[in-house]
Amino acid sequence: MKDRMTLDQIAASAARIAEAASAVPMRHFRQSGLGVETKDDADASPVTIADRATEEAIRAALAAEFPGHGIFGEEFGTEGSLDGPAWIIDPIDGTRFFLTGYPAFGMLIGHLQAGVPQVGVVRMPALNETYLGIKDAGATLNGAPIRARATTELREARLFINEAERLFAHDPALFARLCTTGHTRRMSYDCYPHAMVASGQIDAVTDIGLEPYDFLPLVPLIEAAGAVITDWEGRALTLGSDGRVVTAATPALHAALLNVLHG
Amino acid sequence: MKDRMTLDQIAASAARIAEAASAVPMRHFRQSGLGVETKDDADASPVTIADRATEEAIRAALAAEFPGHGIFGEEFGTEGSLDGPAWIIDPIDGTRFFLTGYPAFGMLIGHLQAGVPQVGVVRMPALNETYLGIKDAGATLNGAPIRARATTELREARLFINEAERLFAHDPALFARLCTTGHTRRMSYDCYPHAMVASGQIDAVTDIGLEPYDFLPLVPLIEAAGAVITDWEGRALTLGSDGRVVTAATPALHAALLNVLHG
Repeated sequence: MKDRMTLDQIAASAARIAEAASAVPMRHFRQSGLGVETKDDADASPVTIADRATEEAIRAALAAEFPGHGIFGEEFGTEGSLDGPAWIIDPIDGTRFFLTGYPAFGMLIGHLQAGVPQVGVVRMPALNETYLGIKDAGATLNGAPIRARATTELREARLFINEAERLFAHDPALFARLCTTGHTRRMSYDCYPHAMVASGQIDAVTDIGLEPYDFLPLVPLIEAAGAVITDWEGRALTLGSDGRVVTAATPALHAALLNVLHG
Repeated sequence: MKDRMTLDQIAASAARIAEAASAVPMRHFRQSGLGVETKDDADASPVTIADRATEEAIRAALAAEFPGHGIFGEEFGTEGSLDGPAWIIDPIDGTRFFLTGYPAFGMLIGHLQAGVPQVGVVRMPALNETYLGIKDAGATLNGAPIRARATTELREARLFINEAERLFAHDPALFARLCTTGHTRRMSYDCYPHAMVASGQIDAVTDIGLEPYDFLPLVPLIEAAGAVITDWEGRALTLGSDGRVVTAATPALHAALLNVLHG
């Protein structure tokens, strides 16, 4: 029965699972505020508890609906095989935003076939937004079709620079170069700016230091919206990519941004 | 009659006016997306239209409730005198976030007496949050009391660095120094991080390049929540301040951060 599910049906399930699981992080969000200190890095910190509980909820729902599919998640590693149909999960993408009570943290769920992303969900629990993309089909935000912008010129681009601090430590000259790239820039983090390229709000994002569960779920969303997402060499993202990611609304803008990245 | 209004009554009016006026920017928010190009800097851009329409709505409401009070706003300048009871308005604080469809833009309304902030409202239209502070009284978020954290040690601080790009251009060495300050850092913008110090989510914010309508409405909120907000010299903020602002949860943390700012 499950074998005959279409990608549309699989995508609808993934979005439903992400929306239902959103209640878990929201029970913990901002509960550490009001002057109560938390030990951010300890195993029993509120953030760690929320991360794990969220991934457990997603894993349980996926296992019930898709028995036999492999699962790879940030908190609990790999279960089953990633060679066939599989899922990749980041229960709370943007742990530091979550920790600091900032509502731009996300939840990522991707469906892979033989390692190739087929379906991607970006769920924003505190903003109540669900971005969904299906390979070779369409992208939606809360069910309504979305499409990337048509910007081709870097000088007109709305550029979000993710992980500025890490980027600055990695390559100060590149950081300085990006600070004069594009028309409007914002320093930002995590999955949300990438989703905003898909929804046609902004034009491009540069990112660094990501893990496969951070970027593989983005691929079907970005591509289904007509935009481009690759590593900094312009190569397709895979389980083995190095975690440097660039998203752009059009191939021309993407090519121009690769040039900036390589100085 | 209006002369006998208490600060509590004035504050309640200001919050109500901010909440009602939120419908104006929300009518324009994300309407420029979906591939439609906008000329960001042109007079008739959607952002400019939204900015002006929002300030007009706030001005009209204030004039009706507080005839004779001076008003100073970002878009339409000063009306009446700022020497007595007056209002200071930033209709859309975070124009670039607004432009790029990012929901962390705010609306600021401050009430002054002889230039000294008495009441401050930070309204987040897309997040439906209203932060309200009254001088020598309390601070609230959507009506519930809030209070700053008790953090005194910089190494434990959740630090938000506003306007990273401007800061980096102004003083790259200071930018680098701040990138190793505190326990958890996020690059950020505009009023929201300051409000999050008041609500006990984070510990400190550094900011640069602000105008009086950006920082004066913050003062009663931050101080009523038990936190500290000054310029980079540690002086009280006034209509004549230079636009460099530092907010911290406690006096000890504030002093430590001033030391970092001055290298």
